[in-house]
Amino acid sequence: MRHVRFRDPAGAVREGEYHDDGTVSFGGTEYDIDEVDVLPPCEPSKIVCVGLNYANHAEEEGMEVPDRPLLFLKPPNAVAGHGDSVELLEGKEKIEHEVELGVVIGEQCRHVEEADAMDVVAGYTVADDVSNRDDQFAEQNWIRGKAFDGSCPLGPVLADPEHVPENADVELRVNGETRQSSNTEEFIFSVPELIAEITQYMTLEEGDVIITGTPAGVGPLEDGDAVEIEVEGVGTLEHGVHAP
Amino acid sequence: MRHVRFRDPAGAVREGEYHDDGTVSFGGTEYDIDEVDVLPPCEPSKIVCVGLNYANHAEEEGMEVPDRPLLFLKPPNAVAGHGDSVELLEGKEKIEHEVELGVVIGEQCRHVEEADAMDVVAGYTVADDVSNRDDQFAEQNWIRGKAFDGSCPLGPVLADPEHVPENADVELRVNGETRQSSNTEEFIFSVPELIAEITQYMTLEEGDVIITGTPAGVGPLEDGDAVEIEVEGVGTLEHGVHAP
Repeated sequence: MRHVRFRDPAGAVREGEYHDDGTVSFGGTEYDIDEVDVLPPCEPSKIVCVGLNYANHAEEEGMEVPDRPLLFLKPPNAVAGHGDSVELLEGKEKIEHEVELGVVIGEQCRHVEEADAMDVVAGYTVADDVSNRDDQFAEQNWIRGKAFDGSCPLGPVLADPEHVPENADVELRVNGETRQSSNTEEFIFSVPELIAEITQYMTLEEGDVIITGTPAGVGPLEDGDAVEIEVEGVGTLEHGVHAP
Repeated sequence: MRHVRFRDPAGAVREGEYHDDGTVSFGGTEYDIDEVDVLPPCEPSKIVCVGLNYANHAEEEGMEVPDRPLLFLKPPNAVAGHGDSVELLEGKEKIEHEVELGVVIGEQCRHVEEADAMDVVAGYTVADDVSNRDDQFAEQNWIRGKAFDGSCPLGPVLADPEHVPENADVELRVNGETRQSSNTEEFIFSVPELIAEITQYMTLEEGDVIITGTPAGVGPLEDGDAVEIEVEGVGTLEHGVHAP
């Protein structure tokens, strides 16, 4: 099953079920997903992000594959939803897309063992880790580079884990042209490994998101671009891009 | 005026007024601050942290003074309160204290000009930027190093800006011994400069906190330590330390 948070025509926030024909049902009513205001699939208190989790992306950035997950954070102001438009930052030359599988946490947890990690997963979503390269490589912590408003479109659905193959294709298209195409079998660190590592240090809350790194093929976003991001078994997140 | 969030003896969350004699008043009742459960002064969606904002601390860490603020993040799981005990991380050798002035944001804001920055400040609090050096200097982004549970004690009060001198003494004592002692006149970047810089990139929400960097004198915390952190005009934040 795949869940969609949305505002119905009366403005009420609903959690409906997504169907393959592009409709969303709640309380006996069916809506066309393009005719409702789709909200981000959860309201994270933090997004824990993983860098360099596909060897071919580490290579294209000229960075070594780390011996433990490279972690960084996006705060709640980074969250955007399906159908939203990401605002580029004034005066920055190179703001890039990064397709990622998002893992949504289902319960408050700490010190989770790898073997138990899937018990705390509510499901999967699709994410774009929008990155401002002008600043990212000029700062110690990637704050200006990665934590700006709208830098994490999420959605449109929260897919139950059994809905998603263990090795899922991930693909990102800009204006219909494929830019990134890979499969999560390329992960250096698996989802259970990531959850075990992160929860050694911090409590994850219900609704928190882990985004799991991007494969090769990152590239620039420009004013007016239409971005489609697809993860097999989850669905396709769409967002726009606009200059300030 | 100085505000204290606390649970009264019936468990209700109250926002009272703090008095110099160590009492807190709410609704015509006075409480001894040591007899109520003092809560963190706000519930931040993020804590934006500034590194190396005093030249003498940059020197002791062997790092250069940056030409723009070095920023990093602590998520909500980092928040602890007055009277709480910070849990050290298993297996880590060097976890250190850092006294900081905390700036509490009073309204949602973005693209704030320096000249208007004090309009978005609700007031000041005291913070400890507890830092796990074992990991901090071994990772790109300071997540294991700075974002772990309990790594940001805050409180006990939110002091109105007019209650705090422009140049305020800051001091940190461990078991009664002074470890850090300085004054905010040593800031490399002022509070308005920090707010202007941060809000170029991200929206700050009501209750968000900016912690403004630490002076020289950082040092290790051990199981059983009693930490007192004082900022002139704000008050004294106390927290314990315990091994897991």
